[in-house]
Amino acid sequence: MTNSQTVTDPTTAHVLSVDAMGGDKGPATVVAGLAVFLRRQPEASALLHGPESELKPLLSKHKIADRVTIHDARDVVKMTDKPSNALRQGKGTSMWSAIEAVRGDNAAVCVSCGNTGALMAMSMLRLRKAEGVNRPAIACLWPSRNPSGFNVMLDAGADIRADQDDLLTYALMGASYARNGLDIAYPRIGLLNVGTEEHKGRAELKVAHELIGNAAERGDFNYVGFVEGGDLPSDKVDVIVTDGFTGNVALKTGEGTANLISELLRGALMKTPLSMLAALLARGSLRRLGKRIDPRRVNGGVFLGLNHTVIKSHGSADETGVAAALDLAYQLARNGFSDKLAARVASAASLAQDAHQEGDAGTSDTNTG
Amino acid sequence: MTNSQTVTDPTTAHVLSVDAMGGDKGPATVVAGLAVFLRRQPEASALLHGPESELKPLLSKHKIADRVTIHDARDVVKMTDKPSNALRQGKGTSMWSAIEAVRGDNAAVCVSCGNTGALMAMSMLRLRKAEGVNRPAIACLWPSRNPSGFNVMLDAGADIRADQDDLLTYALMGASYARNGLDIAYPRIGLLNVGTEEHKGRAELKVAHELIGNAAERGDFNYVGFVEGGDLPSDKVDVIVTDGFTGNVALKTGEGTANLISELLRGALMKTPLSMLAALLARGSLRRLGKRIDPRRVNGGVFLGLNHTVIKSHGSADETGVAAALDLAYQLARNGFSDKLAARVASAASLAQDAHQEGDAGTSDTNTG
Repeated sequence: MTNSQTVTDPTTAHVLSVDAMGGDKGPATVVAGLAVFLRRQPEASALLHGPESELKPLLSKHKIADRVTIHDARDVVKMTDKPSNALRQGKGTSMWSAIEAVRGDNAAVCVSCGNTGALMAMSMLRLRKAEGVNRPAIACLWPSRNPSGFNVMLDAGADIRADQDDLLTYALMGASYARNGLDIAYPRIGLLNVGTEEHKGRAELKVAHELIGNAAERGDFNYVGFVEGGDLPSDKVDVIVTDGFTGNVALKTGEGTANLISELLRGALMKTPLSMLAALLARGSLRRLGKRIDPRRVNGGVFLGLNHTVIKSHGSADETGVAAALDLAYQLARNGFSDKLAARVASAASLAQDAHQEGDAGTSDTNTG
Repeated sequence: MTNSQTVTDPTTAHVLSVDAMGGDKGPATVVAGLAVFLRRQPEASALLHGPESELKPLLSKHKIADRVTIHDARDVVKMTDKPSNALRQGKGTSMWSAIEAVRGDNAAVCVSCGNTGALMAMSMLRLRKAEGVNRPAIACLWPSRNPSGFNVMLDAGADIRADQDDLLTYALMGASYARNGLDIAYPRIGLLNVGTEEHKGRAELKVAHELIGNAAERGDFNYVGFVEGGDLPSDKVDVIVTDGFTGNVALKTGEGTANLISELLRGALMKTPLSMLAALLARGSLRRLGKRIDPRRVNGGVFLGLNHTVIKSHGSADETGVAAALDLAYQLARNGFSDKLAARVASAASLAQDAHQEGDAGTSDTNTG
């Protein structure tokens, strides 16, 4: 399979574009996370967007000034800004500057902790939707029983609607992301529904069920059919496809449930002297468990379906969280993910219609998307 | 406020109609759960539906034969039966018989562990929708930080669609259920969305937002506005309203997340000798925690919007779970819930349109629904 859309300059495959501003904890945390990441990845470098006067001393403090180029941007998109306002007044912001750097191919992937709505709106405006994509999606990682520890779910909330064709696009994009982000050569895709029986669910889901099933062979993924909410953390699927409304509710419900349980667990272990002693003894084990389901380890919602890749880190991410988002960005950057995804999606329409040539596709070529 | 629809015979307010068949564990578990319930409630009695030859020895074994009347029904709706088949061939089944008993006012509330789809279809056919209800809903209980320990969420999956008027009806029904099932005189209602800002979400949600807000005062509830998935276990709301597709995915996502965490916790505590000792020391505390989030304690999806109340117990419920569903049924039966709900919903349309009389309603009369 040839890739006619390869545009990423190989010299920028190790460069990330990082918005220093907009996170809840400020630029000091972003720079600290960047320092952690750069220590782990000696070949990587970064473009850092924000007020130079603020960023310069932070870089010196962490001794990473030689590997980071500051792009001076004085304005900041605030968490409370409406996307429409951010677009209108956004030109001087660090977020805008961070997106422009990937648009101009000066960096491979853009990372921001800022306002999600504004980041999506600005990315749509400047990077444009990839050919064949009607609605971009946000893919998130979900703690699971799989060997990698994670499943991919999309759309986590880029758009509140998705029709049958969008859901097919999500399946293709999710498969490509699982290959390049999680190293799963032949991902298993499931379509989220209220039951696994074929007659269940809304009309568009039944059509999408057909479309995704038909696209599986040439899309180099395995379609496992309908899955339910309880399968999000399961090991019978790698990628779960749903509309952004349902995905957003599911994501926040999962987080909310996990928070409630941790809170109750902490309360239970602090209740009696015996249980406090127990908590002390089990400290190591519980810390490992906490790490396993730590949201900071899965930090990074990836915007899929644009002409470049943008990663949204949690607004409340600490330096561990920021470093995790940068790790993910770097993995995708080195794999040339943006171009592979674009090639996958651009050929999706012809794939779906062109069922006759299905036999020619051969086995999975994991290097093409 | 007068209640023109009171039809429940006061002599049957202590009688439950129980489908003995259709649960995964068979009638022995249902009868064992019934025995637990009857020991707790000396004034209660039950009509038990299933094959007399099987049920009679079970009742004797638990010494509850004098408080239970068997309605002989030889056929059983299987978990794998399609609702349409169950309807066609259902007449001789224990499920049908259990529903008929509340239809004929021989019992106040019907409880079944059987096939959810068949139970809903049969209940719709025989009990009919209450006046003013377009789509009935299933209300479930959700472990929460509230003093009662639970929030109500509906629809948990009776219908995959819900328009703005349905969502208003769900709000009214959910408020009435919270009053009668959880003893919350003035419930706080939230509408599930992808964000709490007014401009977010689908068009029908924005309209429902207005409708529910307008109905709050005369409906004797407090409307808190949009809530997110993370608020399902929160203490800022008592009842969460959503369509059955989203509700079903959220419910199963919450259960799946809780299961994953318990599994990982168990694994973590069995990992090292120290952690095993810790688990032993904390046994009591962990058991209390387990009880707090035990799905058997919250057993019972309540079908709302029919002319009588039907409770769906988990198919896999053990005797503790069955007894919990019967407790809930009995609470609703004694409160005359079916009639109160019918009165609430029947007057809903006029309530919504009749904004001028809003001032007359006075303060909450917790006895009317």
